[in-house]
Amino acid sequence: MSKKLTSRAEDYSKWYNELVVKADLAENSAVRGCMVIKPYGYAIWEKMQAELDKMFKETGHQNAYFPLFVPKSLFEAEEKNAEGFAKECAIVTHYRLQADPDKPGKLRVDPEAKLEEELIVRPTSEAIIWNTYRNWIQSYRDLPILINQWANVVRWEMRTRLFLRTAEFLWQEGHTAHQNKAEAMAEARLMNNVYATFAENFMAIPVVQGVKTESERFAGADETFCIEALMQDGKALQAGTSHFLGQNFAKAFDVKFANKEGKQDYVWATSWGVSTRLMGALIMTHSDDNGLVLPPSLAPNQVVIVPIYKSDEEFDAVSEVAKSIQTDLRAKGITVKFDDRDTQRPGAKFAQHELQGVPLRIAIGPKDLQNGTVELARRDTLTKEVVALDDLTNTVENLLKEIQDTLFKKALDFRDSHITEVNSFEEFKDVLEKKTGFISAHWDGTNETEEKIKELTKATIRCIPLKMKEEAGVCVYSGQSSKGRVLFAKAY
Amino acid sequence: MSKKLTSRAEDYSKWYNELVVKADLAENSAVRGCMVIKPYGYAIWEKMQAELDKMFKETGHQNAYFPLFVPKSLFEAEEKNAEGFAKECAIVTHYRLQADPDKPGKLRVDPEAKLEEELIVRPTSEAIIWNTYRNWIQSYRDLPILINQWANVVRWEMRTRLFLRTAEFLWQEGHTAHQNKAEAMAEARLMNNVYATFAENFMAIPVVQGVKTESERFAGADETFCIEALMQDGKALQAGTSHFLGQNFAKAFDVKFANKEGKQDYVWATSWGVSTRLMGALIMTHSDDNGLVLPPSLAPNQVVIVPIYKSDEEFDAVSEVAKSIQTDLRAKGITVKFDDRDTQRPGAKFAQHELQGVPLRIAIGPKDLQNGTVELARRDTLTKEVVALDDLTNTVENLLKEIQDTLFKKALDFRDSHITEVNSFEEFKDVLEKKTGFISAHWDGTNETEEKIKELTKATIRCIPLKMKEEAGVCVYSGQSSKGRVLFAKAY
Repeated sequence: MSKKLTSRAEDYSKWYNELVVKADLAENSAVRGCMVIKPYGYAIWEKMQAELDKMFKETGHQNAYFPLFVPKSLFEAEEKNAEGFAKECAIVTHYRLQADPDKPGKLRVDPEAKLEEELIVRPTSEAIIWNTYRNWIQSYRDLPILINQWANVVRWEMRTRLFLRTAEFLWQEGHTAHQNKAEAMAEARLMNNVYATFAENFMAIPVVQGVKTESERFAGADETFCIEALMQDGKALQAGTSHFLGQNFAKAFDVKFANKEGKQDYVWATSWGVSTRLMGALIMTHSDDNGLVLPPSLAPNQVVIVPIYKSDEEFDAVSEVAKSIQTDLRAKGITVKFDDRDTQRPGAKFAQHELQGVPLRIAIGPKDLQNGTVELARRDTLTKEVVALDDLTNTVENLLKEIQDTLFKKALDFRDSHITEVNSFEEFKDVLEKKTGFISAHWDGTNETEEKIKELTKATIRCIPLKMKEEAGVCVYSGQSSKGRVLFAKAY
Repeated sequence: MSKKLTSRAEDYSKWYNELVVKADLAENSAVRGCMVIKPYGYAIWEKMQAELDKMFKETGHQNAYFPLFVPKSLFEAEEKNAEGFAKECAIVTHYRLQADPDKPGKLRVDPEAKLEEELIVRPTSEAIIWNTYRNWIQSYRDLPILINQWANVVRWEMRTRLFLRTAEFLWQEGHTAHQNKAEAMAEARLMNNVYATFAENFMAIPVVQGVKTESERFAGADETFCIEALMQDGKALQAGTSHFLGQNFAKAFDVKFANKEGKQDYVWATSWGVSTRLMGALIMTHSDDNGLVLPPSLAPNQVVIVPIYKSDEEFDAVSEVAKSIQTDLRAKGITVKFDDRDTQRPGAKFAQHELQGVPLRIAIGPKDLQNGTVELARRDTLTKEVVALDDLTNTVENLLKEIQDTLFKKALDFRDSHITEVNSFEEFKDVLEKKTGFISAHWDGTNETEEKIKELTKATIRCIPLKMKEEAGVCVYSGQSSKGRVLFAKAY
């Protein structure tokens, strides 16, 4: 609580790092690139999990669990997928330590305990899962398989940042199997839509749904759908992806089924995932120079009550009312913390709850008892008002809804005002320098142009929006013809 | 569904393995010793998780997440703990694969990508967590820390069995920090008690609470509390443990705090865990030769409705009633599946639901519609009765409670009738051979006697029961004096 945060204007990146640590969300660990998710941060992640899990089950999916390790021979079976992840994977080679003969009290890897085949710590689970599905699928009657897994995965990234890019992260990965292309494609679209709904309605983060260009696709996918969000510093963040995998994994793992006509065919696949990266998106969409701002749907405590008192008698009188407020709000399903710690003064409590983004703060003191009022402070607008105790439950309930809506609208306004249509490469570079955000521009559809633009500007094609309006035009870079505008941005 | 299960009398171990696979709970994977938990098995685990998580939160604990990997230097810091787990741990030594120059299309470990320090895949997380707690604790005001983690851990066991002993398993591990011994000891006891309550009230598994002898303690603990259950074959199964860790980890990781008197002292610790091993305990406590038997509290579907029909008209009429039953039961919070698959005949459905342990089955056909009845079948007793449709919701609600109680009482009777008091080593060996179960016997309290008995009989001291009655006696093996009876058994 001690020092103020670096402001966003001063150093956005530093602001983010400080906020994550000071708001008690996460911290770096003794393991390079791996984070510790602290209880307050984890409580937010649990809320995301609960809501997503409900949405997955409502769309017919079941959870299961597959092994952490992928034998190398399975890992390399789907070539593109293997190539995509080979450069950043943790590899288990031995299964035993022994006393180090040279260093008393220390251990060393037992050279005798070498695995016959190396095991890759899963960076994603298509390989191990499709190797399993082969035994589960004989006929079209066994399809579809609609499975999700909550798990940890490891990608040995060289440059890591808390939540945004960590060597180990938590995620969910859906893996579905279908009898034809249309059904698999519909599933991939459906789950991308579930992600978009979740991001907008629950996290209050507006997203653009689109498809990735070939170069940005998931390794092993025929099509990658995505949701793209815009952070306050004008950089884009890929918040979730849903892949149509065609028959690539079925072919790599020989997963065939007898179709309705009795003919053998390869199974069609999708996979889709979101991760603890969403925590980064959450922070960078709503928070401000005073700390975290949380939409009520994700706040571990939606309301905190801080008692103001000078004597034990005052504390008792205030506590009685505070507890009755707590009971009433809880009856409405609102999470409320009564912060009755006697080790902190009210000012310090205010600062902490502000830093940690509690949506509403109720302060109540002896004067309030006399007047039948409380002081109510909104975290998102940093405004305070004195309100009647009488109708407090309704007031709070309505305000929480309003805050959720306000945060979304604010983020939407920001996002919409940061999509700039450009029609020349000069304009492209100019906008990128001055304003950042999404740039909507015509592109000729080639890898070469995409690569060249990336090289010259560091901006990449975030997606070809699903709702792209048909519009003839010419590519801002090559001058070749284009069918419509795509979204460019610098990205996390 | 095809073949019948091997009976328990014929081969208990084979019965168990077949049941796990045929009831769709889990299967072996391509990774030695690692299992795939299938959706039906995982749904049961999710119910355990939800209830335990609630109980942990009600006792003041919060969830968090710590890294999967433990650097070797941290792993070896607490010597006893390191020694206990060194022989069975998976070790990450490299972080990149590359194209194999000798085998086109294959990958190999990149010899250049060797880690400076090896990483151990956590077999348990005390080391990484206490290394983290060092930075979180300065004063008694920072205590207690009451944290739980849901995670996967890896122990490279040589002989594995689905759920009971697997190289990777899922578990929760609580890790708490306290300012004095009494508080830590109270926490260790409290959580063991939480486990006992969970096992008995939720899983319908009677357990004995006790402490482990020194030789059976967790590596690094000063005292290990446990809950011990008895399986149908008379072997004991350790279902959960809660450890008082003293100041061992605080000393190993230099975690000190300023106490209320302003003096520096080492922090006191506990850790406690239950795992997917509980699935094994569940299966081996209640199930029978026809398959899984589930207590209603853990059944993914508490009730299944099977329609009996010959024509589309009959199906429509039956379905209408079935759906209304489903709606009524769901309104009471009962989980109900309407099994309207047209790919299976009723007989096959009955067999599947019996194998999968659905507590109550409702069959409904045209005759029932005429009579205003349904056929209700109990899985635990394999009994059927025709009951009135009128009062079905209450009937079902009461029956589910009765089944839960019946299963617990049945298991309790079995357990209690399999605790035999013996007063000589001849009797000890005789009982162990004929009846199995727990043997309650006097023991002189020495490691030597315990070891010798184990060598001669394969029975180990499962625990010194917390409720041991004070009773003077002499050790069945050595004839030395003893303060009371302890529980021996052969164990999983």
